[in-house]
Amino acid sequence: MDLHSEMMAIGNRAVVAARKLAGLAVQKKNRILCAMADALEERGDRVLEANNRDMDAARNAGLSGAMLDRLELNSSRVEAMANDLRAVSKLKDPVGKEISHWIRPSGLVIRKVRVPIGVIAVIYESRPNVTADAAGLCFKTSNAVILRGGKESIQSNKEIVDALQAGGAKKGLPDDSVQLITTSDRDAVRELVQLEDCVNLAIPRGGEALIRAVMEHARVPVIKHYKGICHTYVDKSADPAMALRISENAKCERPAVCNAMETVLVHRDVAQSFLPELARQLGARGVEFRADEKARAIVPEMKPATEEDWSTEYLALILSVKVVESIEEAIEHITKYGSKHSDAIITQDEAAATVFFNEIDSATVYWNASTRFTDGGEFGMGAEIGISTDKLHARGPMGLEELTTYKYLITGSGQVRD
Amino acid sequence: MDLHSEMMAIGNRAVVAARKLAGLAVQKKNRILCAMADALEERGDRVLEANNRDMDAARNAGLSGAMLDRLELNSSRVEAMANDLRAVSKLKDPVGKEISHWIRPSGLVIRKVRVPIGVIAVIYESRPNVTADAAGLCFKTSNAVILRGGKESIQSNKEIVDALQAGGAKKGLPDDSVQLITTSDRDAVRELVQLEDCVNLAIPRGGEALIRAVMEHARVPVIKHYKGICHTYVDKSADPAMALRISENAKCERPAVCNAMETVLVHRDVAQSFLPELARQLGARGVEFRADEKARAIVPEMKPATEEDWSTEYLALILSVKVVESIEEAIEHITKYGSKHSDAIITQDEAAATVFFNEIDSATVYWNASTRFTDGGEFGMGAEIGISTDKLHARGPMGLEELTTYKYLITGSGQVRD
Repeated sequence: MDLHSEMMAIGNRAVVAARKLAGLAVQKKNRILCAMADALEERGDRVLEANNRDMDAARNAGLSGAMLDRLELNSSRVEAMANDLRAVSKLKDPVGKEISHWIRPSGLVIRKVRVPIGVIAVIYESRPNVTADAAGLCFKTSNAVILRGGKESIQSNKEIVDALQAGGAKKGLPDDSVQLITTSDRDAVRELVQLEDCVNLAIPRGGEALIRAVMEHARVPVIKHYKGICHTYVDKSADPAMALRISENAKCERPAVCNAMETVLVHRDVAQSFLPELARQLGARGVEFRADEKARAIVPEMKPATEEDWSTEYLALILSVKVVESIEEAIEHITKYGSKHSDAIITQDEAAATVFFNEIDSATVYWNASTRFTDGGEFGMGAEIGISTDKLHARGPMGLEELTTYKYLITGSGQVRD
Repeated sequence: MDLHSEMMAIGNRAVVAARKLAGLAVQKKNRILCAMADALEERGDRVLEANNRDMDAARNAGLSGAMLDRLELNSSRVEAMANDLRAVSKLKDPVGKEISHWIRPSGLVIRKVRVPIGVIAVIYESRPNVTADAAGLCFKTSNAVILRGGKESIQSNKEIVDALQAGGAKKGLPDDSVQLITTSDRDAVRELVQLEDCVNLAIPRGGEALIRAVMEHARVPVIKHYKGICHTYVDKSADPAMALRISENAKCERPAVCNAMETVLVHRDVAQSFLPELARQLGARGVEFRADEKARAIVPEMKPATEEDWSTEYLALILSVKVVESIEEAIEHITKYGSKHSDAIITQDEAAATVFFNEIDSATVYWNASTRFTDGGEFGMGAEIGISTDKLHARGPMGLEELTTYKYLITGSGQVRD
């Protein structure tokens, strides 16, 4: 079978599964999730053996230490995957919820009700835990999922999906609810994201290169974020201690994630006092600074920033620093170089915060808090399938509700249109 | 300037306009809409002159009567466009509305607030009234709009957009809020729907060929419907008089629109009594029938249906007719051949209606009402920018709310993440 036919067959099976999933009662779904978790733990040894084979191949291929760490499973990581599935079983199911209803003058009753999206393709990189995570969230919302992980983790992913299928089947998981693409053909993703008649949504999770590759070929809707260039703007009316604490947290707490700060913008009125403290406090945490001329006039030890720095997602302990003349200049900078992910203003001035809230066109905008809070768990969603910097359907952290759509159910008594 | 640069320039101007639009107060927007309406009426003669030139060119090019009718303006049609803009000025503005808010244990206050999408491209065919209509709806929701109408209506569209811009400018319409693409280059649409950095949403309105052409090249999100293959299923427990009345309305009231019925499915238990009545009553309205063998065994005058008929959007007084053994067969048929637009069940049996509601995966599902109600106005939205058979962001009729997205505004008091 050629690749196109193979992907079509997977897509068509997912469509059939999605129809069965749409009718599953929530109690049954929760029992299936727990059975999936149990099976993952029971088959832990097989999963770890498969992961060892992936790790050996990855070492032979010369993958970096960071890559190997992302790929590696151990018994506590397997247990964490299982527990995450159990946690998803406890979350409230949005499917079937009535969003609104109204009655037309004709007597027609219109109800807008949450339903599954249908078939979701999740395309990701080396972390095998995404396999169980994405499968659990899509299943909880009655979506069929087609998983395509990184080639490095193929053996691990196969065992994980086998466990989920076998465990779930005991409690009535419909066939093909969770499918894994196992072909080594790199064009599989291209074929997958062109299956307009089968796939309702593609969610790529990973580095910018992966996401651009998906977008290059996609004909199905894609929700994504390329990167997180998050800013903290320290206003002239900022509480300096708060500004320092938030800046340190936003940069240093976990620099390799998308909601970490990449650039601090400092109002000129407070730059003289703030920047030396910033350099001292974040410098002590190992942060390297790339600064504009105005900032370097205050802290000459900072390296000069290049134009490229302003749009670079360092994912490391590096921080761009710029002194701005006004909040307007800060907003202009964020609009030009930001990624519409998360941006913060630190100020005691409510008027300034309001301007920032209104004019920053990002998924999440903060006033006196760290950008690190952009996360499904931190938002109280209980889970996260990804973060969107797109504007359609879902923005910011995507939890269970964002994995649903709606339909209109309209009840009449014989109404016809004039 | 080459086409790509030209389109980029239009896109970049729209982005600048969108930022200004986001901050406009609703009262100001409403005054601008009324000023646009006034200008359209004041410049009615120029619009009609331009339309005459389009009509002459269209006649010389040998366009069909139906096409000419769609293209033609007269003073009452211009007045209707102006009044539609005034009506939009009276609709409630969804921008700024708080969708929800909650407080996290840390004290962070999270507000989810409606905001404009940004820049919307509307791609349509010959009707010049779409120009004013789409401009009004996008403007009301503070979106910048880039319009690309059919080449037949280019002179009319130019005059309409000139009037909107001139009238709006008097009351403070930001420059480039409403732009029209006037190049005759057919590749303009391709370039437009690839402007990922400028265009946030493309809405194609027109025939299936237009929409497929957009989808072929799109890298920006698209909301669309290819066609409406709408079904009415007459259940064994249907009220026969209601089933006839609804069938006649769904097929005959306006056959050329997407929410008209194309296929009636009749349960075998009622086929013997229902089909002859259907043939008589709809036959008297000029309907031609294309029926399966079981239906033809009851009404032999019906023509035989081909496989192709089941997935054909006739947009005319033609109706496919099929006898089904069960509600399950009806649902299977709709799932296989339908377009996820609008489908109806006629039954007095609530259990059957519930199965139909649950299993039909269409934007709008009706119980005892005509599919013709799928329309923004009929839903009480006050306006409609289009209908979506997609599942992401918007499903069914799209009004003002569907032209917005949201952002999260998060207020803290110095919170950092552990």
